[in-house]
Amino acid sequence: MTELLSNYLAGRAQHGTGPGAPLFDPVLGHELVRVDASGLNLAEGFAFAREKAGPALRAMSYGQRASLLDAIAKVLQARRDDYYEISTANSGTVRNDTAVDVDGGIYTLTTFAKLGQALGERHRLVDGEMARLGKDPAFQSQHVLVPTRGVALFINAFNFPGWGLWEKAAPALLAGVPVVVKPATATAWLTQRMVHDVVQAGVLPQGALSVICGSSAGLLDQLQPFDVVSFTGSADTASIIRSHPAISRRSVRVNIEADSINSALLLRSDPAAPEALDLLAKEVAREMTQKSGQKCTAIRRVFVPEELFEEAAEAISARLAKTVVGNPRNDAVRMGSLVSKEQFVSVREGLAELKAHTQVLHDGAAHPIVDANPQIACCIGPTLLGARDPDRNSQLHDMEVFGPVATLMPYRDTEHALALLRRGQGSLVASLYGSGADMLAATALELADSHGRVHVISPDVAESQTGHGNVMPQSLHGGPGRAGGGEELGGLRALNFYHRRAAVQAATTVLCALN
Amino acid sequence: MTELLSNYLAGRAQHGTGPGAPLFDPVLGHELVRVDASGLNLAEGFAFAREKAGPALRAMSYGQRASLLDAIAKVLQARRDDYYEISTANSGTVRNDTAVDVDGGIYTLTTFAKLGQALGERHRLVDGEMARLGKDPAFQSQHVLVPTRGVALFINAFNFPGWGLWEKAAPALLAGVPVVVKPATATAWLTQRMVHDVVQAGVLPQGALSVICGSSAGLLDQLQPFDVVSFTGSADTASIIRSHPAISRRSVRVNIEADSINSALLLRSDPAAPEALDLLAKEVAREMTQKSGQKCTAIRRVFVPEELFEEAAEAISARLAKTVVGNPRNDAVRMGSLVSKEQFVSVREGLAELKAHTQVLHDGAAHPIVDANPQIACCIGPTLLGARDPDRNSQLHDMEVFGPVATLMPYRDTEHALALLRRGQGSLVASLYGSGADMLAATALELADSHGRVHVISPDVAESQTGHGNVMPQSLHGGPGRAGGGEELGGLRALNFYHRRAAVQAATTVLCALN
Repeated sequence: MTELLSNYLAGRAQHGTGPGAPLFDPVLGHELVRVDASGLNLAEGFAFAREKAGPALRAMSYGQRASLLDAIAKVLQARRDDYYEISTANSGTVRNDTAVDVDGGIYTLTTFAKLGQALGERHRLVDGEMARLGKDPAFQSQHVLVPTRGVALFINAFNFPGWGLWEKAAPALLAGVPVVVKPATATAWLTQRMVHDVVQAGVLPQGALSVICGSSAGLLDQLQPFDVVSFTGSADTASIIRSHPAISRRSVRVNIEADSINSALLLRSDPAAPEALDLLAKEVAREMTQKSGQKCTAIRRVFVPEELFEEAAEAISARLAKTVVGNPRNDAVRMGSLVSKEQFVSVREGLAELKAHTQVLHDGAAHPIVDANPQIACCIGPTLLGARDPDRNSQLHDMEVFGPVATLMPYRDTEHALALLRRGQGSLVASLYGSGADMLAATALELADSHGRVHVISPDVAESQTGHGNVMPQSLHGGPGRAGGGEELGGLRALNFYHRRAAVQAATTVLCALN
Repeated sequence: MTELLSNYLAGRAQHGTGPGAPLFDPVLGHELVRVDASGLNLAEGFAFAREKAGPALRAMSYGQRASLLDAIAKVLQARRDDYYEISTANSGTVRNDTAVDVDGGIYTLTTFAKLGQALGERHRLVDGEMARLGKDPAFQSQHVLVPTRGVALFINAFNFPGWGLWEKAAPALLAGVPVVVKPATATAWLTQRMVHDVVQAGVLPQGALSVICGSSAGLLDQLQPFDVVSFTGSADTASIIRSHPAISRRSVRVNIEADSINSALLLRSDPAAPEALDLLAKEVAREMTQKSGQKCTAIRRVFVPEELFEEAAEAISARLAKTVVGNPRNDAVRMGSLVSKEQFVSVREGLAELKAHTQVLHDGAAHPIVDANPQIACCIGPTLLGARDPDRNSQLHDMEVFGPVATLMPYRDTEHALALLRRGQGSLVASLYGSGADMLAATALELADSHGRVHVISPDVAESQTGHGNVMPQSLHGGPGRAGGGEELGGLRALNFYHRRAAVQAATTVLCALN
């Protein structure tokens, strides 16, 4: 039998009492470890976090909690090689893709540590200026933000077991709110190991960071009015969470980041068109293949002026053709596997469905699987589809295949392009390719209400742009509608979710004493 | 048959096709008017608002939309006498209580008009500063706020048919988002008449303001991902709304303001104690009797140092004893009726339940009902209850009687008092009475996470303080947990709910063109 990983709850390592669910190597196919959450005393664990860790964290200033983030980053940095090994074994990722998850998590921690240090020795945040409530200047209103007196529960997705933890935990801990993370089972190992290392290093107050691996049964029942829950995953699970009594009746604050059908848009009438088309092709190919397309921010729909359809198809396909797919342990390989057999089957089925409405412009099936048994490895080549009539088929705008798959579509004019992008019903990110500051700004603003982020790639920033799908801690991560309606990151904006805002109406002398 | 009021939808007056539900005079008992929403083409109405009114509003600047609010206020001001008549007839309110609803609504409109004028000719809001994303200063992130491309649906409560509409509509319209309001049936007349007057005056783009009176059946089904819904009312209905597929699956943004068990807290060890106790008694008596206690912000729990229990009971009771209850048309009357027979029964039943756990310190049943038939009029005298052991009885902290009822409770020390207040599980407002800026500020901060607003009454602001239950447009209105977890008002913060935030990542030259 493989090792049964421990959970961390109520400030101590705890094993589940069941046989456990196995985690697999998606390339080699063998079992790696097991996880199990049965028999845990969840009520005790949540109460411990709420009553022991919460007060300990809130007793610190923002600056002191920022130092905790730095300490976590140091612990992780020292064990980075372990994480790379676990990631390759359990997620089937090549080193560059592991970096997005592992180093991306560490970068997010250190970024929030810096932002937090700037808040210094404060214990609360003042929100805006005093406002007069009438003619008498002696009685006014001042808004404050204070940490919520509860626990932050994270129910995370399988694609970012590292970054997905820290992009949520960094602002939560900085805000003074203890964290309980429930990673997706398929790739829970990395999350578990990171929490294990941080807890063992003793850099956090006891109970400030817990991990529960395996079933999520009963977790939501633990939530009390001042707790918060942040979920990343499918719209179906999101709906179950929103309808749970803790949320629907106790007003537990919930943040949802669901899947979305993100777009890339090549603008027309641009003197820099050839250069812009090349930038688009490069970005689309990268987004399709990075982490085998298993990013909630990945480009799924590519819109180009109708007269450039062929040219774009060729440019993207040419780049995809160079992608070597297979065993991530082989240095020649640029794209590893999907995270699990389940995902492999889901992507194959989704691809078959999309193919029924599209033409295949670049066929992933033509890619040899290098250094791995195609009968076992969850590897799949990148596939570019094309749809000449994007108005007709709602599937193109509704259906996400969570793998190395995107669909190229032509548009007539800008109005048409914007309407097509909006058919995604709310996305995490759209990227624009072109030049001319005014046109780019105007188009970005047109898309700002239906996208959490608009990423503009013009030739002058070709080298310095940070990537369509790359989530920077300085910028909002989330999107309206189908994308779940949540808001994460965005620099210090991320703290809002973990704080409660209150208006204090009082004599000005009292308000001055709030600081 | 009484008049069947028209709805306003798709830019025109529309009558329901059914017989309609009757609205009554709660003091005299007779039927006033009828409302009906059957047979309306809701899909057409919502689409009209979304596709006609939305673009018209968004084409205007904030300054121009601020002028719309001023125009609405002028329309209402000119017809103020009508509203006072309707309010007395349909809500049973004395003039002072009508003022809170009618003049409070107008004040909120003019306050947001002023705030909006200050935003000037902008068409969008820039959120924060540009943030560097790496070493190259040429590529950065800038957050923007843009109006959501949808409709704002308001499902409102019976206690504020006037203010309840405008406190939500003012920020929505200023943000550029069309409004559909569904008032509570019992008191829908005032809302309907105000919308009627504003629509007839032609001061808004067609379809920018709609009203649907009667059943809410099918309303939530109309909601699309970029719409928002704001609800004020019971926790039960809130739970139904949150679980509706539009919210749980389409991520329609929802704001809930539910009932809460608000508190008043007299602090101890205060040289100004006698003065503070008098301020508390005055405020509690006012909160209990204003609008017959039918305010979601009204004081329900009163906490005093245990040695001051008797004194506080006497001081509050003495004030309550002076309250003349009865027909609001009689000039001697200070407190009118509850809004309906249904509320009257509900308050009587709730009061009986609370009485089982408390002693009666001042009995509302002893008040004569002036100038009205006690068999018909929904009038009820103010009742102060007392509970010597507030730790034992959870009902005292859980159960809201939505009428002129409050419970006095003693506390041992500040820690005990704070724990008792927090047993409300999240409230809209707490008020503090005492002096000493540092202690008041420290106590306010302790309560800031469990209350949307903390109102501090010290002797120096006895005259200028704006009232525990009075919702000022400059301050946040809402509260965590049981209070629904929503945020309304708070000055320009109110616009956030009607805007979408997006990060634009682009060349600095592009970001500079966003303004």
